[in-house]
Order: sequence, then structure tokens, then C-alpha cells
Amino acid sequence: MASLKVPASVPSPTEDAEQLRKAFAGWGTNEALIIQILAHRNAAQRKLIREAYAATYKEDLLKDLDAELSSDFQRAVLIWTLVPAERDALLINEATKRLTASNWVIMEVACSRSSSDLFKVRQMYHDRYKKSLEEDVAYHTSGDIRKLLVPLVTAFRYEGDEVNLTLAKNEAKILHEKICDKKAYNDDEIIRIITTRSKAQLNATMNHYNDQFGNLINKDLKEESKDEYLTLLRAAINCLTNPEKYFEKVLRMAIKKLGTDEWALTRVVTTRAEVDMERIKTEYQKRNSVPLDRAIAGDTSGDYERILLALIGHEE
Amino acid sequence: MASLKVPASVPSPTEDAEQLRKAFAGWGTNEALIIQILAHRNAAQRKLIREAYAATYKEDLLKDLDAELSSDFQRAVLIWTLVPAERDALLINEATKRLTASNWVIMEVACSRSSSDLFKVRQMYHDRYKKSLEEDVAYHTSGDIRKLLVPLVTAFRYEGDEVNLTLAKNEAKILHEKICDKKAYNDDEIIRIITTRSKAQLNATMNHYNDQFGNLINKDLKEESKDEYLTLLRAAINCLTNPEKYFEKVLRMAIKKLGTDEWALTRVVTTRAEVDMERIKTEYQKRNSVPLDRAIAGDTSGDYERILLALIGHEE
Repeated sequence: MASLKVPASVPSPTEDAEQLRKAFAGWGTNEALIIQILAHRNAAQRKLIREAYAATYKEDLLKDLDAELSSDFQRAVLIWTLVPAERDALLINEATKRLTASNWVIMEVACSRSSSDLFKVRQMYHDRYKKSLEEDVAYHTSGDIRKLLVPLVTAFRYEGDEVNLTLAKNEAKILHEKICDKKAYNDDEIIRIITTRSKAQLNATMNHYNDQFGNLINKDLKEESKDEYLTLLRAAINCLTNPEKYFEKVLRMAIKKLGTDEWALTRVVTTRAEVDMERIKTEYQKRNSVPLDRAIAGDTSGDYERILLALIGHEE
Repeated sequence: MASLKVPASVPSPTEDAEQLRKAFAGWGTNEALIIQILAHRNAAQRKLIREAYAATYKEDLLKDLDAELSSDFQRAVLIWTLVPAERDALLINEATKRLTASNWVIMEVACSRSSSDLFKVRQMYHDRYKKSLEEDVAYHTSGDIRKLLVPLVTAFRYEGDEVNLTLAKNEAKILHEKICDKKAYNDDEIIRIITTRSKAQLNATMNHYNDQFGNLINKDLKEESKDEYLTLLRAAINCLTNPEKYFEKVLRMAIKKLGTDEWALTRVVTTRAEVDMERIKTEYQKRNSVPLDRAIAGDTSGDYERILLALIGHEE
């Protein structure tokens, strides 16, 4: 369930565009007004506002926001204002650049979006970057990380509820053999199962693994030494089978960190506010005994705090 | 250019459906009438005929065709009547079954369709088989074959004309090193380049390879021993960069074979008649000094011959 709150009666896109223009005018910027508008419009409405803004002022709303705002608040507003496919294409493109490289972000986008949404990201990637998404991901990775990430980003998983229980049993057994008997964590069969099966099927396989072998698969996938591939594989399994728990953990880590991880915080809040943030908030409260809004308020400040709280549906 | 010939004035789908129903009636089947109608309608028209047939007779045209016809002619009519995405989904599904397994067919569909057409095949695969295409391909393959085929079927290549010549040079060099210095034919970098780059970019890379190193890449990819992976890799490169030459060769081999390879012949004629069969015919004539229609007529007979000739645009 989404946390985004859209007022019952919304001004026309032209009126919203005018108000935003006013927020930029004169000395200083009216950040409160920007939040009041953009943080309370859904993706379709934000798109119309950008179109109205371009039509009326012959300028790009995103460029003006970029010029008027700064630091974490700027990034949150910009990322939020994009429609989901554009935003995800941007996140993945950043994640393949040297200075902002992040295999984690690539995995997260690939594993948490629906099949058709992930495909829209790939279409958007063609439009924006004149390349394919998988070509950048493959080029900027290598070895086991590439072996895991490329099939994750190119997957078009079946989304029906049908589950083949015999297959789940067989594949749980394959996983257990490769992981526990052979410690072959990068085995082709592990990659095949994780990257091609439907989420419903994977869930059944993981449940069977747990029932049959007495351990969660992610417990068996832990080694003494910190290994990026293994960490990413565990996160992918979490993200595919328990997205709310996965996102709760990313938020928890981002907030707990000495010096908050604002990129992760912004990413999770902006990408989940229109999807499942209510369930993530429930998970957060359950796991941390403190509501997410209070945790965010304790760790951030100013306009950045205000837009995050608005997006997670915090009432003033 | 397509070879399919659609008459200037086409009867309504309902009239076509009625005529087909008549062709099935009484003793024997009127194959000539079936060819006259179906082999002269484009994909959209055939779809409307199927819908009209279902609406009027509450039966599936494909099932009735299946019941009325037999052997190679039957397969040609059935495969042809499907819309392209349905047909390709069926071809790949067959290719992952034990008795009709064919890594070649999987490679051919993946490499010769446009990016959006290949994606439509994946959507159709969900609808028809309640699974993802890549999940079946990955499950039914292993080792180097899987390593090549899975990224081929999941690719969504960029289709713009932009070519990065520096990249082409660098990647030609990588290919040459892996192939000629190391004989590492299944190296991750070879797979990455072939399976993710746009066809325009691949063309530039292959041209540079030829100019710089004096050999066509496919010549360097030959070994004494027959290796399925290497054969498939060479065919994929051909199919991606020279589709008409690729299809000419498949036709040549199908016809030359002792006992024609009807599955290959039917597949190429039905899948290319609405796409580029005219260019394939030109290639065929150039390479074999005999027109394709004469070669097909010499190797096939009866209704099967007649529908193939109709589809390649042979005038009576």
C-alpha cells in the first residue's frame, strides 16, 4: 500500500506549474510550497505538471528545481519528481558510473519491480541513454557479479500465482547441494533458479528449503569472510521473496549508520512511496519498536526531513 | 522486403472464414482454397479470420486445420496462420522439449527478431505457457550453451544507428585476444559483447575485426572438431550481422540435405515471408545460381510445395 497522500481535490496541472514558478521567484525559494505540491501528487499528475510547466514557461521543471535547490533535499525532489521508469533508469545509469557505482542499486531495481515495470525501465534506458541497460550493466561488471546481475536485470519473470511444488522440492535440493555440500555459491544452477523463476515459485522453493534442511537459505549462504557476491546474492533473495523486509532493512541500515546514508534513504522513500511504503512502515515499527517517521525525524532535518515525512504519509 | 502477396481487394474476415469452413466440408478437403486464402493474408488479417471463425462456428480454426490437414503441409499451414509472436513462442517452446529440442531454433528467434518483437514473444510465452521463456531455455540447457542462449533470448538490444567506433576497436581487440591468443571461445567477454551490443555496433566491431586482423571472426572461431557451442556462436554472429545471408544458408542446407529438412524449410519460409524474404531470395539466387522457387519446387511436392511457393511470392 502506498503512503503517498494526494488531496481529494487537486488543482489543474497548469495551476500547480504556476505555483511552482512562484516558489522559484524572487529572493530565496519557497521550499514549503514545492513540498506541498510535488510531494502530494502521483506519478501521472507530476508528469502533467512537468508538461504544463514546459508548455507555459518553455523551460524544464527539473532543470529549474535543480538550479533552485541544493544537497539532499534537491536530490530527493528531483528523484521523486521523475516518473518511476525514468527514475529507475537514472538510478541504474548512475550505478554503472565509476563515481556512483553500486551493484546493490542495480540488484534492488531488478528484484523489486514488477516484470512489466522493469521492462519499462529498459525501454526508458534506450530513450535516455541510446544504449541498452544490460549492455551498461554487463560492461561495468565482471566475474560473479556480472553473472548474477545481468540475468537479474534482463529477467521478465512470470507473475502468475501457479506454483509447481515438485519443481520447488527439486530445486531446493539442488540449491542445498550446491550451497552446503559443495560450497559452490556461484554455481550456474543457483544463478539459474534465482534469476529465472517466478517470485511465487521462488517463495515455494525457499519455504521448502527451510522445512527440509532446517535453515533459511540465507543463513547457509553466509561465510566468515565478507564477499560482495554472496552479500548481493542474499540481498537479491530477500528482495525477491520478502520485499517489505528487504526495504525495512535498507532503511534501518541507512538510519543506523554513523552519518545517515541519505542516498539509500532517499532512494527507498521515493521509489516505495507510491508502492508499498505502508507495509514497509509496519515492518519497520515491528523490527525497531519505533515508527519510521520518528526515526527519520531523528536523523534528518530541514526541508529534506519534511519531504521524506510527507512522502511516507506523516501528518503534520 | 516481404514476399507475401495480398490481393488488392480482400474479402471480409467473415467471408474468408466461411470459405475456409467450406474447404473443410464434405469428403476430402479443398487444400487449394485454404492456400488461396491463408497464404495471401497478412498477420493482422489472419488474426481477424480466426476471430470471425471462432465467433461464427464456435470452434478454433487452428484445431480444424489441424484435424483436416496432415504432415508437412499441415505444419506449414498451422505455423503460418499464427501471428508472429505466437509462432515464435511455439517454436521456442518446442525447442526446449526433449523430442523437438533445438538450440539452433532458440538462437535464430533470439537473434533475428527486432528487440520489441522478441519482447512480444516473451509476453506471449507467459500467456501461453504460464512460465517465462528464459526459465524454460535456462532449465533445458547447461554449460556454455546456456551461457550463450539465456542472454540472447533476454536481450533487449538498442536499435539506434549510433555506433561508437572507439568501442568497436576496443571490443574487436578483446575478441581477437580471447579467440586467437587464448582460444577462450566461451570467455565471458565474448558472450557479453555478442549478447548485449546493438546490431549496428556489432557490425562495426566485426568490420574492424576483419580490417585489423585480416580474418572474418567466424573463420577464427572454427576448430577442427565439431563443437555445438562454437557452431551456435558462429551462427549467432551471422544471424545478428547478416540475417539474409544467415537465412540463405539455412535454406541451402535444408534443401541440399539428403531428404529435405522440412522443419527448417517451413520455419524460414513462414517466419520470413512477411519480413525480408525478397532479400533472402536475392541472396539465394546469388549464392546458388538458381532461384529459390525452383530449388523448392525441385525438393518438395503437392500442397506443401504449393504453400511454400505461394508464401515466397511465386506467381503461378
